[in-house]
Amino acid sequence: MKILIANRGEIAVRVARTCRELGIPTVAVYSTADREARHVAACDEAVHIGPAAARRSYLYVPAVIEAALRTGADAIHPGYGFLSENADFARVCAGHGITFIGPRPEVMDLVGDKARVRSLMAGAGLPVLPGSEGAVPSPDDAEKIGAEIGYPVIVKAAAGGGGRGIAVARDAAELREVYRSTTAFAQQVFGDGSVYVERFVPAARHVEVQLLGDDTGRVIHLGERDCSLQRRNQKLVEEAPSPLLPEEVRRRLGEYAVAGARHVGYTGAGTMEFLVDAAGDATFMEINARIQVEHPVTELLAGVDLVAEQIRVASGEPLSLTQEQVTLTGAAIECRVNAEDPADGFRPTPGRLTVFRPPGGPGVRVDSGFAQGDRVPPDYDSLVAKLVVWAPTREQAIARADRALAEFAVEGPGVATTVPLLRTLLAQPEFAAGTHTTGFVTEFLSR
Amino acid sequence: MKILIANRGEIAVRVARTCRELGIPTVAVYSTADREARHVAACDEAVHIGPAAARRSYLYVPAVIEAALRTGADAIHPGYGFLSENADFARVCAGHGITFIGPRPEVMDLVGDKARVRSLMAGAGLPVLPGSEGAVPSPDDAEKIGAEIGYPVIVKAAAGGGGRGIAVARDAAELREVYRSTTAFAQQVFGDGSVYVERFVPAARHVEVQLLGDDTGRVIHLGERDCSLQRRNQKLVEEAPSPLLPEEVRRRLGEYAVAGARHVGYTGAGTMEFLVDAAGDATFMEINARIQVEHPVTELLAGVDLVAEQIRVASGEPLSLTQEQVTLTGAAIECRVNAEDPADGFRPTPGRLTVFRPPGGPGVRVDSGFAQGDRVPPDYDSLVAKLVVWAPTREQAIARADRALAEFAVEGPGVATTVPLLRTLLAQPEFAAGTHTTGFVTEFLSR
Repeated sequence: MKILIANRGEIAVRVARTCRELGIPTVAVYSTADREARHVAACDEAVHIGPAAARRSYLYVPAVIEAALRTGADAIHPGYGFLSENADFARVCAGHGITFIGPRPEVMDLVGDKARVRSLMAGAGLPVLPGSEGAVPSPDDAEKIGAEIGYPVIVKAAAGGGGRGIAVARDAAELREVYRSTTAFAQQVFGDGSVYVERFVPAARHVEVQLLGDDTGRVIHLGERDCSLQRRNQKLVEEAPSPLLPEEVRRRLGEYAVAGARHVGYTGAGTMEFLVDAAGDATFMEINARIQVEHPVTELLAGVDLVAEQIRVASGEPLSLTQEQVTLTGAAIECRVNAEDPADGFRPTPGRLTVFRPPGGPGVRVDSGFAQGDRVPPDYDSLVAKLVVWAPTREQAIARADRALAEFAVEGPGVATTVPLLRTLLAQPEFAAGTHTTGFVTEFLSR
Repeated sequence: MKILIANRGEIAVRVARTCRELGIPTVAVYSTADREARHVAACDEAVHIGPAAARRSYLYVPAVIEAALRTGADAIHPGYGFLSENADFARVCAGHGITFIGPRPEVMDLVGDKARVRSLMAGAGLPVLPGSEGAVPSPDDAEKIGAEIGYPVIVKAAAGGGGRGIAVARDAAELREVYRSTTAFAQQVFGDGSVYVERFVPAARHVEVQLLGDDTGRVIHLGERDCSLQRRNQKLVEEAPSPLLPEEVRRRLGEYAVAGARHVGYTGAGTMEFLVDAAGDATFMEINARIQVEHPVTELLAGVDLVAEQIRVASGEPLSLTQEQVTLTGAAIECRVNAEDPADGFRPTPGRLTVFRPPGGPGVRVDSGFAQGDRVPPDYDSLVAKLVVWAPTREQAIARADRALAEFAVEGPGVATTVPLLRTLLAQPEFAAGTHTTGFVTEFLSR
């Protein structure tokens, strides 16, 4: 096997690390902006695939396929974002005899239609929020549903995911407005304007379950991650286990996730996202058919290399462990260190990193696509590093995360980072108590 | 509590990290050579205690005590080396009302006399090699013992430890010679010329057991570390568990260690070293009354912060766990990255680190006292960083160590490192098979 990594930044470096450990040769692809990027050095070969604009490089299927064919790569790992949830890309790979490391294209189609997968999961016995059956064809239909299920409601793009293409409406008038804006946004960004409507749950937690499935039909879960510390649906901090989650709910989430994944014949790594309300009631949100940014949180608790499992499954091998062999120990917290200025509306602050000194010592893992002297280009997301810590208890993990953030030096002309904000957030009593919900960061920032 | 860290380099940074996580303020001490050292920045306060020469700074008791008194530190963590196994220093601390973070001085006296502790451990039921009862007063006595137990024999300084003051003799003539040279060396280096004699075990493994004891009388062990990959008694690579060690021997080593520690009333962290011969027979070697360089190997398997346990015990608290709560998972390997040139007799290569890019990603821990731009001074040991990896199996841990070593960039004018040698050693079939003994590196280097 020879794997082309169709991504950049920390996740490309992450995948390359596992490949090195498995003895699998790797091919990097890079845009002009990433000529000197870390992920290029992390791979055995590298192919330039286009200019900085992602649609002309990392998202440009012909260039990626051509790079694989030219270098003799017989598998492609898509990372997250970019082409990772593009079923058509997976089909093109198959057409060229290249193994796409991810679920089968049919499954990606199913879970990629957020409106449809909702009905499918309800059929598999999972609790879903009251809402539309599939996509909602018109503002009038949306209003009818709103009247039926009661306000506030949430409008979501069927082709969306990762927190994009989502808006809340508090009454019928706002719903009509939001229906129009979300449809327009979805059409423009995802090329598909379909939206669906659900009851909106205020004060909920975002809890997701890590899934793995293989071709022998085995589906297992590796427990949950709590991603409630987010801003505008963008996660800032993820952790496991989910604090204050009753053991009974935890168990049920695992069962739901496995049942849902089985129902669609899911293979490879995936995540099933749930909302958990104040009463502890969980409802299905969506399935993400990729390795997630926050997957290291689970790796630290389970001692499992999720990328290695993806590669095993893609090679037709069974998963390396059974559900009974999954043991989750201690607590882990991931902090996303972004080159952004929280004091200036989270404006991205790309630039040269004249200082990049990652923390070390006990219980600290750093995944980054940068090193001292590297340049964070303005063309992509602003993730500079993921700092992930493990400790026996959540309280110790919080102390460790703060210690490690304090050590983490990222400096450069014009470069600001989320490090100080992350330290502030981790120090809030709501976070320490574990009572924060998805609205907490926004509420905190407006204080 | 406020802790003065009477050390430098990675171990001072290591201790400071745990103190930060526990919310304990710290005081660094530093020599003129370490003015800009990482461990100074890692602590809340810092006191200059003298010139570069260790005997006038890190080993100079009045300066260290004065720094503690001046800053109001009520405890001292000695790290390893320097004052860590100096019972008199521990007494001086006590005399000033300062808690020495280590065993009681009487216990340090006992275990510091390597000749006497041998007899003590035999009394506690531990297997010891045939040899002298206590120190050997003359070359004639040594020769008598040599004739009794048979050659080859090993002569060891009673005040030695950490592999220094040790020599092998293959016959009576050599024994007389070695007796004289070792006595002279011990007198000069340790201020005590006493030596003892034991049967020499060729083709043995160095296996040590991590101990923890508290003031309630609880003594537990956290399994073994294998340190057989060494050169001239200096460890290069340490790992856990010890490969090929029969489960029965492993269990017995743990029992011996706990029994021996109980016998002397050991408290705090310590290590009991054993030799394991080709037949799997274990014999007691020595007790190290300090946190060891290689302690992270155990931390990765046990999920326990050994420095935090030391601090708990020094505060009069019980250990945070019982023997039954100790669970050891997976495999860990530590590689000592030294600024030395293996191609030039392991000559130290101090200098400015113009590049220092530690590895990251899954299962990688780096403990270092340096960052990019820092200078490795010529005045102390040449340890630049400890790279410690964890993986579910030993085979995976070896692959991970190699991957991480390949990522590890340490460069500077005149600076060479042991990284290429470490990669070569890990790649040897003897290491992969786990059949290597303490003579392997020397034998390999002479090929």
